[in-house]
Amino acid sequence: MNTYDRVYNFSAGPSVLPLPVLEKVKDELLNYGGSGQSVMEMSHRSEAFKKIAADAEANLRELMQIPDNYRVLFLQGGGTLQFSMVPLNLLRESKKADYVVTGTWAKKAYKEACKFGDIKVVASSEEDTFTWVPKITKEDIRPDADYVYITTNNTIYGTAYNYVPETGDIPLVADMSSNILSEVVDVSKFGIIWAGAQKNVGPAGATIVIIREDLIGYADASIPTYLDYKVHDENDSMYNTPPCFSIYVAGEVFKHIKETGGLEAMEARNREKAAKLYDHIDSSELFNCPVAKEDRSIMNVVFVTGDKDLDKKFIAEAKAKGLVNLGGHRSIGGMRASIYNAMPMEGVDALIEFMKEFEEANK
Amino acid sequence: MNTYDRVYNFSAGPSVLPLPVLEKVKDELLNYGGSGQSVMEMSHRSEAFKKIAADAEANLRELMQIPDNYRVLFLQGGGTLQFSMVPLNLLRESKKADYVVTGTWAKKAYKEACKFGDIKVVASSEEDTFTWVPKITKEDIRPDADYVYITTNNTIYGTAYNYVPETGDIPLVADMSSNILSEVVDVSKFGIIWAGAQKNVGPAGATIVIIREDLIGYADASIPTYLDYKVHDENDSMYNTPPCFSIYVAGEVFKHIKETGGLEAMEARNREKAAKLYDHIDSSELFNCPVAKEDRSIMNVVFVTGDKDLDKKFIAEAKAKGLVNLGGHRSIGGMRASIYNAMPMEGVDALIEFMKEFEEANK
Repeated sequence: MNTYDRVYNFSAGPSVLPLPVLEKVKDELLNYGGSGQSVMEMSHRSEAFKKIAADAEANLRELMQIPDNYRVLFLQGGGTLQFSMVPLNLLRESKKADYVVTGTWAKKAYKEACKFGDIKVVASSEEDTFTWVPKITKEDIRPDADYVYITTNNTIYGTAYNYVPETGDIPLVADMSSNILSEVVDVSKFGIIWAGAQKNVGPAGATIVIIREDLIGYADASIPTYLDYKVHDENDSMYNTPPCFSIYVAGEVFKHIKETGGLEAMEARNREKAAKLYDHIDSSELFNCPVAKEDRSIMNVVFVTGDKDLDKKFIAEAKAKGLVNLGGHRSIGGMRASIYNAMPMEGVDALIEFMKEFEEANK
Repeated sequence: MNTYDRVYNFSAGPSVLPLPVLEKVKDELLNYGGSGQSVMEMSHRSEAFKKIAADAEANLRELMQIPDNYRVLFLQGGGTLQFSMVPLNLLRESKKADYVVTGTWAKKAYKEACKFGDIKVVASSEEDTFTWVPKITKEDIRPDADYVYITTNNTIYGTAYNYVPETGDIPLVADMSSNILSEVVDVSKFGIIWAGAQKNVGPAGATIVIIREDLIGYADASIPTYLDYKVHDENDSMYNTPPCFSIYVAGEVFKHIKETGGLEAMEARNREKAAKLYDHIDSSELFNCPVAKEDRSIMNVVFVTGDKDLDKKFIAEAKAKGLVNLGGHRSIGGMRASIYNAMPMEGVDALIEFMKEFEEANK
């Protein structure tokens, strides 16, 4: 099918990584850069690993053009821990925060935050099964809110923000787990951008937090130490042993994105891949995308036939052809093709080709 | 020097991994078991990864003979998060817990627990720079304590418990980060055994928690969700995306330990390695081990020349010979040879050989 008999992996996360990165990681797995050690074996205090971590941060900063007044942290605990850390660190004055609920993860973030303050859902598309993204304005936000929280890409429902909400002086917090590094973003519009690594960044187990430095230092001393951004910031993300191997692979992914044209080129490729797939779905008589056109994600493409048994047949037959993990999230069913950065156009083409064959055979 | 020009890596953690495991991981890095994917790219909900995780747990259970009434969790956040999770989950009645302070990590655990309850240091060897391990008896423990906390191996100071404290009905919690799987342990004597992966288990980023099931379910609903053992237990450690790659490598390490004779054979090899090194230190006129003989760790061998400049010279010259990471912890200096499971006897022999040369040249 392709080099090394690899499949086209449409998993929503953990998900496909760039082949050149995997090849490099394999190549240096037993002896990284002449160190005589695997990165997995390196002390996080060693010069070799400190350089790996520093380079990863520098390359991420360059790629996203992160302003100097933002800090970059590499943490553990994924979204679940960020759902707690954001309110525990940012509910610093009124203890109020406003959430936009656009899917399962946004709702989980909201529910978790409710443990720690006065949290309000200022907009939600839940009554329409999250098939669109609310347009919020400054008038929707409580003027004394400590922050506003959004989820820029909704992995399960295949939606994405096509705008950045205007929140004035109120910090905007964004979960970008499933679309970080997929397109150009103006970091300066956000108070915090955080993302789990396991989609566009690297192996699961690392979480990136990009935080404006004036928002650090408000956590109460009574909270668990690991949950205080300040502790990690003051120790360059090495207060405790970091997820070294995930950070290393992430760093290689950052280099690879730079070498292939940075985020502008990445965004262009991603838009082309998504347009091709959505165009095919929209022109098909069998497949249908339930998501409002203007809110469609370029990372997670959700579609259905309208017949659950036929959906299952499609997923099974696709798998047999080496197009794997096309099942929708277990909570909603249907199909979902996650076409993250590392999914090549050839994978999208192969999927479309198979959709045509399947439609022909099942009309 | 040896295959692949690898060094002898005496790092205290992250640290050396078994070469056959690294070779296997390298071999299947681009295509695991015919799946067409790297383990780094696998959905944690896929059958392939679920089998990896289930096998890892089953092999760990077999190796440690973990009784059926204990649950095994694979978490993130390392020791720092366990320092919080233990009190937040186990301070369930009197809100009292008794800690034995035998080093830096035990002290950190104690300080963190103080945020959440009435915590007492029942014994400490701090006044002697942690060069020995207190012998505690049931009489030292408050009868209404919710748990007793110990650190079975003290990575920085090179000490270890040579006994399991008798705590009666009061659960004993043990941080075994730096000696798990190094010797036979009677799990039934503990309420919780936890360990960061990055010494004897696998790459940093995973934390193993072995917990007696009747101790699960006492955390207050107000704590951050990630910190509740019950949440992880009810979801087989997949409430959120786990550190998949670390778990996979850990699973390969478990298999390797089984294939090489299990924990009895491992303990015998470890005792032989440590005895050889301590015997050399004790017979040397230049080197000296400050640790009480009966409390010496078989994992972390601490030694000094008594002259800080000479220590530095030793560390630098050893490094040049491919014996790396022999510096003591940045807080105490001197030398430390961490001889975890994966350090072969050849590495210990090479170290002793160099110590002889160095002593000869510097007497």
